[in-house]
Amino acid sequence: MGGDHGPSVVVPATLELLRSNPGVSAILVGDQAAVGEQLTRVPAEIKARCRVHHTTQVVGMDEAPAKALRGKKDSSMRVAVDLVKAGEAQACVSAGNTGALMATAHYVLKTMPGVDRPAIVTTLPSQTGHTLMLDLGANVNCSAENLLQFAVMGVEVARVLYDIAEPSVGLLNVGTEVLKGNQLVQDAASLLTASDLNYHGFVEGNDIYAGTTDVVVCDGFVGNVALKVTEGLATMISQFMREEFSRDLPSKAAALASTHVLKALRRRLDHRRYNGASLVGLQGVVVKSHGSSDIYAFRHAIQTAMVEAEHDVVGQIGGRLEQLLGHAA
Amino acid sequence: MGGDHGPSVVVPATLELLRSNPGVSAILVGDQAAVGEQLTRVPAEIKARCRVHHTTQVVGMDEAPAKALRGKKDSSMRVAVDLVKAGEAQACVSAGNTGALMATAHYVLKTMPGVDRPAIVTTLPSQTGHTLMLDLGANVNCSAENLLQFAVMGVEVARVLYDIAEPSVGLLNVGTEVLKGNQLVQDAASLLTASDLNYHGFVEGNDIYAGTTDVVVCDGFVGNVALKVTEGLATMISQFMREEFSRDLPSKAAALASTHVLKALRRRLDHRRYNGASLVGLQGVVVKSHGSSDIYAFRHAIQTAMVEAEHDVVGQIGGRLEQLLGHAA
Repeated sequence: MGGDHGPSVVVPATLELLRSNPGVSAILVGDQAAVGEQLTRVPAEIKARCRVHHTTQVVGMDEAPAKALRGKKDSSMRVAVDLVKAGEAQACVSAGNTGALMATAHYVLKTMPGVDRPAIVTTLPSQTGHTLMLDLGANVNCSAENLLQFAVMGVEVARVLYDIAEPSVGLLNVGTEVLKGNQLVQDAASLLTASDLNYHGFVEGNDIYAGTTDVVVCDGFVGNVALKVTEGLATMISQFMREEFSRDLPSKAAALASTHVLKALRRRLDHRRYNGASLVGLQGVVVKSHGSSDIYAFRHAIQTAMVEAEHDVVGQIGGRLEQLLGHAA
Repeated sequence: MGGDHGPSVVVPATLELLRSNPGVSAILVGDQAAVGEQLTRVPAEIKARCRVHHTTQVVGMDEAPAKALRGKKDSSMRVAVDLVKAGEAQACVSAGNTGALMATAHYVLKTMPGVDRPAIVTTLPSQTGHTLMLDLGANVNCSAENLLQFAVMGVEVARVLYDIAEPSVGLLNVGTEVLKGNQLVQDAASLLTASDLNYHGFVEGNDIYAGTTDVVVCDGFVGNVALKVTEGLATMISQFMREEFSRDLPSKAAALASTHVLKALRRRLDHRRYNGASLVGLQGVVVKSHGSSDIYAFRHAIQTAMVEAEHDVVGQIGGRLEQLLGHAA
């Protein structure tokens, strides 16, 4: 069990999920003693639905993915993915090293037929609800075919997670006019236009938060920058708000008078509600939680994995790809 | 005079600048009648320092750059750039069509020796002050050499605008580890490391707003997305704040009690203070104002142009390039 907090976050979050989902059971993969410590005073009914799978190794948060893959065959990460491969688990959730998780999942589970490369997708808030964006950094060099496949994956995730019949797809570009952008987006636009997806056309960075389309597709370099810019700007604005609301006595009084408004605002912008980035295009459900997640955030990541498994997102993506690309699933 | 508001914004902003800068004079390029309307009741001393240069054409905000370049030789945009070329003006400021302005400035003024492509640079706020970022969209396909040249331009603009002796440079990437990213950033990192610039290393999207470096360099595709994501997220957060502070009577009372704090916050995040993106790498100073700028914002763009001209940013960039690249200026 990785992430910054290990079992002290992962186990309570799992127990909470089990409590509200009677049909679900969990395998807690990690150091038996550390996990066991978190399992005292748990009602028998809940305990009956979770078992501990002891592992002896840990993948470091900064460890090179290739090194983790070669040398850490009894890490909680590797074993959790192996359990998905073996069909013992229907999904795997990890707060560990993203690169190592992607490398491990890619190696063990393999990509689906019709998928050249897996991608990372997450939900972001928007003015009209939310937007799914991919790829977020798994692929820093993409082909137009990769972007088309990402679009299919994003669409099926949006159908499964948000129950949208035919999610709209925007292709991230530097302008919305048809001639804008580089060769990659031009070629991808041709493929998307020729597909049976609900393709909207080019969108710009601001459209992610305007909610112009349900899904925004881009290469992993651009997607990673967009995501990190979001984190950086949100952090800066929060800091400025804290500073201004505590500058002097009248400002502190204003903060006090605004407690309920500021709380509602924080809830609305709470990134923990969007925690859980799915690794898609693999023959199995794998969800990556932010390393610094708390119980509330990690629970959201498990919930995402649970919904994806319940609705067979892997099968859905496979079916759509087969239909679209003529590949045998 | 372009932009969404034309002379009704450009002329009053110019007059304000002249009022506080006694040594400066202005050439107002546009339709004589429309400009003249804005010049009634102007003190004689100010009027003596501005003259109107009549033009008969206008470049549309959505007009194709190539078409504007070929067919609009008496547009305010073209004539203003021509005046810089002729040495009659030391800088040109426009709120018009960005693509057309870049194409016109590139064609008329030409790039500096040692510069393959001009770039667009702007200031963004950060937790520690501000960050200069380039390119913002002029170049959607860049080489490592382009990025090195952008770094030199950004550094000299930072020295001129913010009086920083040796501005630090970050190269935008998907992680800070040396092996991260695509070939472009790997190659650019080698060039930057070998240069005498104050090169910090890779930065991520969040570092723009953390203020990790004075200058952030990236290709125009990535920079444009980063800028537009910023606009979109800021708009969304503003909307959420407005909604929460007007949801019901207690929320409206909280807004009233917080008027001074919200005002201070708005001032701090006011994008108008950052209006004015410089077109750099050209043999002349050209600044692009946002199309929807008001008087306050446009004045800021003129101020930027004035400071760049006063401190000979073009000569500074030329000197640094010559020193760095061994080109004859």
